[in-house]
Amino acid sequence: MKAMNGAQSLVRTLLAGGIDTCFANPGTSEMHFVAALDQVPGMRCVLCLFEGVATGAADGYARMTGKPAATLLHLGPGLANGLANLHNARKAQVPLVNIVGDHAIYHLYEEAPLTSDVAGFARPVSHWVRSSKAATEVSADGAAAIAAAKSNGGQVATLILPANTAWEEANAAVAVTPAPAPRPLVEDRAVAPIVEVLRSKEAAVLFLGGAGLSERGLHAAGRVAAKTNVRLLAPTSNARIARGVGRVPIPTLPYPLQEAIENLKDVRHLILAGSQRPVAYFAYPGKPAFATPVDCQIHTLVKPEEDVVEALERLAHALDAKSAPHLAQKRLRAEKLSGPMTPESFAAVIAQMIPDQAIVADESLSFGRGLLPATSNSAPHDWLQLTGGAIGIGLPLATGAALACPDRKVMCLQADGSGMYTLQSLWTHAREGLDIVTLILANRTYATLRGELVNVGVTNPGPNALAMLDLHKPILDWTSLAEGMGVEASRAEDTEGLMFQLEKALGRHGPSLIEVVI
Amino acid sequence: MKAMNGAQSLVRTLLAGGIDTCFANPGTSEMHFVAALDQVPGMRCVLCLFEGVATGAADGYARMTGKPAATLLHLGPGLANGLANLHNARKAQVPLVNIVGDHAIYHLYEEAPLTSDVAGFARPVSHWVRSSKAATEVSADGAAAIAAAKSNGGQVATLILPANTAWEEANAAVAVTPAPAPRPLVEDRAVAPIVEVLRSKEAAVLFLGGAGLSERGLHAAGRVAAKTNVRLLAPTSNARIARGVGRVPIPTLPYPLQEAIENLKDVRHLILAGSQRPVAYFAYPGKPAFATPVDCQIHTLVKPEEDVVEALERLAHALDAKSAPHLAQKRLRAEKLSGPMTPESFAAVIAQMIPDQAIVADESLSFGRGLLPATSNSAPHDWLQLTGGAIGIGLPLATGAALACPDRKVMCLQADGSGMYTLQSLWTHAREGLDIVTLILANRTYATLRGELVNVGVTNPGPNALAMLDLHKPILDWTSLAEGMGVEASRAEDTEGLMFQLEKALGRHGPSLIEVVI
Repeated sequence: MKAMNGAQSLVRTLLAGGIDTCFANPGTSEMHFVAALDQVPGMRCVLCLFEGVATGAADGYARMTGKPAATLLHLGPGLANGLANLHNARKAQVPLVNIVGDHAIYHLYEEAPLTSDVAGFARPVSHWVRSSKAATEVSADGAAAIAAAKSNGGQVATLILPANTAWEEANAAVAVTPAPAPRPLVEDRAVAPIVEVLRSKEAAVLFLGGAGLSERGLHAAGRVAAKTNVRLLAPTSNARIARGVGRVPIPTLPYPLQEAIENLKDVRHLILAGSQRPVAYFAYPGKPAFATPVDCQIHTLVKPEEDVVEALERLAHALDAKSAPHLAQKRLRAEKLSGPMTPESFAAVIAQMIPDQAIVADESLSFGRGLLPATSNSAPHDWLQLTGGAIGIGLPLATGAALACPDRKVMCLQADGSGMYTLQSLWTHAREGLDIVTLILANRTYATLRGELVNVGVTNPGPNALAMLDLHKPILDWTSLAEGMGVEASRAEDTEGLMFQLEKALGRHGPSLIEVVI
Repeated sequence: MKAMNGAQSLVRTLLAGGIDTCFANPGTSEMHFVAALDQVPGMRCVLCLFEGVATGAADGYARMTGKPAATLLHLGPGLANGLANLHNARKAQVPLVNIVGDHAIYHLYEEAPLTSDVAGFARPVSHWVRSSKAATEVSADGAAAIAAAKSNGGQVATLILPANTAWEEANAAVAVTPAPAPRPLVEDRAVAPIVEVLRSKEAAVLFLGGAGLSERGLHAAGRVAAKTNVRLLAPTSNARIARGVGRVPIPTLPYPLQEAIENLKDVRHLILAGSQRPVAYFAYPGKPAFATPVDCQIHTLVKPEEDVVEALERLAHALDAKSAPHLAQKRLRAEKLSGPMTPESFAAVIAQMIPDQAIVADESLSFGRGLLPATSNSAPHDWLQLTGGAIGIGLPLATGAALACPDRKVMCLQADGSGMYTLQSLWTHAREGLDIVTLILANRTYATLRGELVNVGVTNPGPNALAMLDLHKPILDWTSLAEGMGVEASRAEDTEGLMFQLEKALGRHGPSLIEVVI
């Protein structure tokens, strides 16, 4: 075989391990990896103008394909810029491999301007971190990173690549990535007590997360519900939910703690299936940390990293639940809607217009809280949510989902304040010609925080406090921002306008943006 | 005294410790701090739409005032978004206090969506990290944070504020921030050998960093140079240099390693005064890590954290260097320039038009490398540079400098690729009516990396590699981006156009942006 350097051996290793997409914002230390993209064909490398776009896109890609993409990031600061969306990816439990360049090993003994603790930055968001010691080890390290990413149902793995390990001569042989261990199966002794609970007829909720929200997982859960009347419920925020006509409809727990408590107040048994006990997003003075009543028993059918779908099917079998589940059926009528823009009218428009097999990247936050109930009977689609609470994920998530599924329409429902965090995504939408329609929900305020002021006990905020939540001075003009990055944009001020603009945008291929003034 | 909560006690402590400016992007956990801004008057709180803007602005503020500003950041992800510019601030050795909200202590036992290792994120960029244990300790913790920030010539201090320590009742008394220890003076035995070296007449460079680049530091160094013919030189990147007419002119070491080596090739003695031995930004295959010749002796007159100015004055005294130094004198003639935009014509325009007492926030990178030589004889000004190599600092630095010095014009010289990292700054420019003229140098490429490809030995990059450095598809329209955030914008395509637009922009108060197509 021909001699190759560490960077080339890494690209080959990634390809051999099934990674063929890389979201990149490279710098000097990554130039050999970048050069290797031409020497080793097969890697699609997507340029992002900010690292938070790259990491959020890798998350979206993984949610839709179930397999990892790579990111290519420049040293500690480049990784730092991507951390917030890596935090979200960690909470989404997706597989993801970060390749982070570093100075040559011998250069790290000096305090050069860009010298930093790269592994220190990586650790809080990574399940696995390693820095390559030599070019000859890069391939094995790469294979280990991929294996780590694919373990436990999806992890964030960060491989640090010192520059000299990229340019020095590597082994000709490429390390083979071991197949990940299959998700562990739950044992029958975990299923039996759940059967007992469900037969007791006491008020119970089957709380589905992770793969439990796939079409197959929901179908099994739906059979259980048809047999036992157990209530199906999903956490507030989820990596991906299969929804719409032909799927088992499932509501999500409301975000406001008071509403969540109300929702669960009569529940005696909460059965976890790929989810965790619903903890409040935040602590509030004098309020509980959990939405479940104190006398509610928590049971675990299956943990997120185990085989959730198999466990649900085994539960259905144990219950002899053979009847077909209730499926969302009623197609919404296409009708002209009009009137002012409200959360309800917005949700009604989206419900009608979600294209068949669309992917919805949802960071609509405060204005979008009516969307899920309204869209249960829409055309079949996948819904992606903000899993880790780190805002600025919607636009990047749409980027990765569109690259993962080029034949499907992507709708990005993006709150304006959060959208500003990673607006650079729009440039990649344009550059790659991605089939994404972005709706910016322009309330020109950090609206979530207005509610939170009251929740934490600030009942009479003064002008300085209110100024910190207000984005009116000056008003952000999202059509200008989008056009500045090459994305066609328009504005909708009422329901009729939104329908008109959305129909136009969905009727063509490629990126567009509608600023929805609310 | 009236009862107050932890947040109020912290705001009082900050004010008592001399911190009256806060760059903020708060979330739920920081709502009590935000509310306290109205209950405790005196804190100017500046909203930034992305945390990298807040941290870079705090850096710029500290560079111009010598005192810390606070940042207010939301949990781990909010801090993470600010890390890259905190890395730059750490390398600039400025005082800075981060206030990072966290979940209530008792809520941290649960894996809520936003739960993360906040201290883990903070450590790589912070000299000092503490998480408050109780509301009654918040004031003492705040005072300790300020003291840490002011120590050793300027440090990054990060105080983590769990939500319950903000809302619970605090001590009525506010902790007093101890005065920072004065910078240590160098001992005479450090000065004597330098005197020897300078009297030897062997080729020597006085390598000035930190406070050595203040007007007073340069004046003392200039007297030394006038007496001994020692060559004055500054590092490639510096927090702040006093420049222009009436100041001692000082060149900076070129960024390209080969040019730096050439610059220092005959030097036998490099005398460090507030600087460190000039290490290459990056390691390159087969090239040395240091720009100094192998037989060059390195001497330390004074370390960055010591009293650099006093040491230089003591050196001048020891040398009996009484003559006035050479000062930049010749005012440039105001003349109409025309022709295509080149690095030289651009530098000539800037040299003529820098306003008296202007502050220049320079992230011009590749196109701007001729600026410093051209502007030695411009009107007196301060020049701020990218200290840590983490791009995306220019626009935030200008933000902080303009708030620190409302009576001075700020010119922001911003490369386009880097500018995209923190373009959200422009909104704060508009919101606060800051007197900043931003020039975007639109070469529509990561031009620095084109050179670096060759430097690291990639001599024949293919189309995939070149695509990673190219920002032409689509072209960024910076006038649209600026107008989308409320900043008046124009475009200049040649030298004449730039002069015309710049004159107009400098003639009015408030923010504007000129996209300079190059």
